[in-house]
Amino acid sequence: MTAAAAGSPDGSPPLDYIFHPRSIAIAGLSNNPARWFIKDSFLTPLVRGGYNGNIYLVHPDGGEVDGFPVHRNLKEIPGPVDHVVSCIPAGQTPGLVEECGHKGVKTVQFYTAGYAETGEPDRIDLQDRLLQIARQGGVRLIGPNCMGIYCPMEGVGFCADFPRETGPIGLVCQSGGNADYMIRYAAARGLRFSKAVSYGNACDINECDLLEYLADDPETGVIAAYIEGTRDGRRLARVLARAAAAKPLVVLKGGFTEGGGRATASHTGSLAGSEAVWDGLLRQVGAIRVYSVEEMVDVLVALVRMVPPQGLNACTVGNGGGASVMATDELEAAGLRMPPLPPNVREGIKELIDLAGSMLRNPIDAGPLLSATGGPMLLALDGRPLDEFIWEFATGASDERWVRFNRILGDWTELDMAIFHFAFDIGPTHMNETIALVAGGALLLAARLCSLPKAVVLHSLADDNGWQATEKIRQICVDMGFPLFLSMRGAAGAIRKLVDYNRLYPERLAVLRRS
Amino acid sequence: MTAAAAGSPDGSPPLDYIFHPRSIAIAGLSNNPARWFIKDSFLTPLVRGGYNGNIYLVHPDGGEVDGFPVHRNLKEIPGPVDHVVSCIPAGQTPGLVEECGHKGVKTVQFYTAGYAETGEPDRIDLQDRLLQIARQGGVRLIGPNCMGIYCPMEGVGFCADFPRETGPIGLVCQSGGNADYMIRYAAARGLRFSKAVSYGNACDINECDLLEYLADDPETGVIAAYIEGTRDGRRLARVLARAAAAKPLVVLKGGFTEGGGRATASHTGSLAGSEAVWDGLLRQVGAIRVYSVEEMVDVLVALVRMVPPQGLNACTVGNGGGASVMATDELEAAGLRMPPLPPNVREGIKELIDLAGSMLRNPIDAGPLLSATGGPMLLALDGRPLDEFIWEFATGASDERWVRFNRILGDWTELDMAIFHFAFDIGPTHMNETIALVAGGALLLAARLCSLPKAVVLHSLADDNGWQATEKIRQICVDMGFPLFLSMRGAAGAIRKLVDYNRLYPERLAVLRRS
Repeated sequence: MTAAAAGSPDGSPPLDYIFHPRSIAIAGLSNNPARWFIKDSFLTPLVRGGYNGNIYLVHPDGGEVDGFPVHRNLKEIPGPVDHVVSCIPAGQTPGLVEECGHKGVKTVQFYTAGYAETGEPDRIDLQDRLLQIARQGGVRLIGPNCMGIYCPMEGVGFCADFPRETGPIGLVCQSGGNADYMIRYAAARGLRFSKAVSYGNACDINECDLLEYLADDPETGVIAAYIEGTRDGRRLARVLARAAAAKPLVVLKGGFTEGGGRATASHTGSLAGSEAVWDGLLRQVGAIRVYSVEEMVDVLVALVRMVPPQGLNACTVGNGGGASVMATDELEAAGLRMPPLPPNVREGIKELIDLAGSMLRNPIDAGPLLSATGGPMLLALDGRPLDEFIWEFATGASDERWVRFNRILGDWTELDMAIFHFAFDIGPTHMNETIALVAGGALLLAARLCSLPKAVVLHSLADDNGWQATEKIRQICVDMGFPLFLSMRGAAGAIRKLVDYNRLYPERLAVLRRS
Repeated sequence: MTAAAAGSPDGSPPLDYIFHPRSIAIAGLSNNPARWFIKDSFLTPLVRGGYNGNIYLVHPDGGEVDGFPVHRNLKEIPGPVDHVVSCIPAGQTPGLVEECGHKGVKTVQFYTAGYAETGEPDRIDLQDRLLQIARQGGVRLIGPNCMGIYCPMEGVGFCADFPRETGPIGLVCQSGGNADYMIRYAAARGLRFSKAVSYGNACDINECDLLEYLADDPETGVIAAYIEGTRDGRRLARVLARAAAAKPLVVLKGGFTEGGGRATASHTGSLAGSEAVWDGLLRQVGAIRVYSVEEMVDVLVALVRMVPPQGLNACTVGNGGGASVMATDELEAAGLRMPPLPPNVREGIKELIDLAGSMLRNPIDAGPLLSATGGPMLLALDGRPLDEFIWEFATGASDERWVRFNRILGDWTELDMAIFHFAFDIGPTHMNETIALVAGGALLLAARLCSLPKAVVLHSLADDNGWQATEKIRQICVDMGFPLFLSMRGAAGAIRKLVDYNRLYPERLAVLRRS
């Protein structure tokens, strides 16, 4: 089936309407302060996100919340309602869905939980009844037991702190919590989303529908999926193949162990399926498989923000002897290669970096040159805020030594990528923001002047002190557009996957690059 | 060889004197502000650490630094000097060591680098010459190219932010940077050290001497070692066997890949040795092998702070459906088992925790009960600082529901451990300190009331906001004595190693418990 054939009459893929509701009603939000959680999750995001449609609140108590009148039921709402967020007790939801049918509501998403995932027969029946009523009323359901829709373009979301900007990642996520964590964790690394759906128990709209939609969605350049199970293995196999062929597809299968499989049944009532079947299927369609939320984000950083290296030969440029040894082990353990510097490259670099306190064989511990680059910055500061100054320095300045350094690396024809890294808490000095900015600024300048495929790893953060001291330089790194990793292991695994993927499916990566 | 036979006449193990210098001279520190780094690394730690011996500074310029007179050479120092820290250029160090011999100095540690690790013939010669002069003068050398000694009991160290309290961990670390990072990272998790030595190029005192010392050291209950290579494989094999037999020994071999092996040559001039030989040797002697600094610290947390579970059956108690599924996968992937709740246990727990929004099969998502425990705290606060209140609550209060919960778990005879975990950034609410303290406080109360072997995992921290908001509750967890992990993967791997180790070598663990 082609995109056009699958789409609605106006050419947009089916389900597109669920991301563009003209009005939203939140059922179950009253001015009872104990409901602050609901307000935080579903009203505040719309208000802060700048949602342009009408927002309605529904609760039998009536009243007012933050200036919004609370309607006693759906019928009382003066205008049409496209989308409803259910935050009422499960037992009352059949009535709500019936009302939705009468009101012409297109979709209902259920924060409400307590259905098939409990494993209790009466709760399974309740979920079945919900679906039956929805079908009769022409209403589509998302969930139950989910967080629903995030569409930054429309200002729709389920967390007030999600980014308002859009990006190329389309996320299908069976778990609401994992969606929250993944979107936030990704946002801190500069990643943005076209759409995300937390779809819970998948009683109606399911992973297949959503993957099909994202495969055809022109705003989505890469698909990230967290899936716990499926009720239709044959269709899922077809849909995964189609989505994977259309654009890069990264899959985190929740419940791949025996205990994990039982856990998914208890979480979203899913049939986890056999690990061997999933693994075979994902390999066969050419999806990239990951095993944790953190790895998912690392792989997305590599896919979205890194120029694909053409081979496995890497060189690290950073600080710290022990850190450089550990970096080398991590990179080679992930299947990348750290070849020794060719003699002419080593001779050239020796003219730039003092031998004492450095390592010039690959890994390159360029500590002395980084200090020599960063140190003088402080003298030029002249009372200006350091972070502004470092931003200008890292994005605008040049440095003859690093230009030469990178020219020498560029002459090393077998080299496929340079990994610039800074280990913060490995020095005798307690890290502080000034040192972090100066050292990090020098590293980012060095990285910017490099014309090879590159990544930046800012790592070895031991404690609260180190983490907070490096907050600004991490943000500058993200803002400069670098692929940022927070551990060498994370970087190594993700970059290895990028190299392999680019070798096998360059045309799929090209889809992402065009998006 | 027994400890007594190996020791000095007073019964203390050989080398004990290097940790207890009666006076220390720092060579190369002047009032030149460009030398702040040296001051920070070697003078400030002594002053802040409360070192009781005499501190002398030596530099040809003379003058004064922070009220300490700077002597022009060692001879000018009025009293005896036990220990010298060399921060002068490598070329001048033969003269310094000669002076040390005349002055009766016992040990010199060299921050100075630029010797054999450069691979340059003249620098290799320089290191050899240093050793020759030292032998003639009866001086022992630590390094060169290292950070030297940390002995909190004496107030001696190489970072001003290292803990002043002692603890059971003895660290032998060929890399100064890895020592800095490891000690800080471990400190943030509540771990403390008896002694640590960063020993760099190991031209005189080497890994064998130090491991032998720590094997016999009554203040050391567990040995952590980062080793890049050795010059005497036979002796190392004997020493590792002896140390591993005496107490738990955890080894991080730097340079276990081909490129990593080359890197160690360039870092500390080490012969990395074959991976197969190392792996075989470490297995044979019953050392615990780890592959990163982070894993080293996780394993030390488990060894030092966790009651060893007698088997592999785990149960998780925490929040979040997706987080619980991922936790289960991580635990089972590491070889732990997450058996389903027996029916009677499930029935008991169902009476305590609402089914909607929870998972009661193992993993147990006890979100609703955690909220019900934590929420009322805020009402009882009455204007007091929340962190103080939470401390009292978590350490002193009781809660009938959690008492019953833990009694029910305790009746589950096949269960070997409970893992209490909280995922912070998985909720729709942007994390803040109040929520983190209330939610975390409820979890810590629940964990305290549990009588099974247990661990706490505070995880899913997405960004600066989450990290900072949870700083206090992480500290409370550490202060309560819980084994704290920051990722389920880290916890799973470390706990699995603890269970296996306890099964094979309970008598070695007993040595640590007595220390």
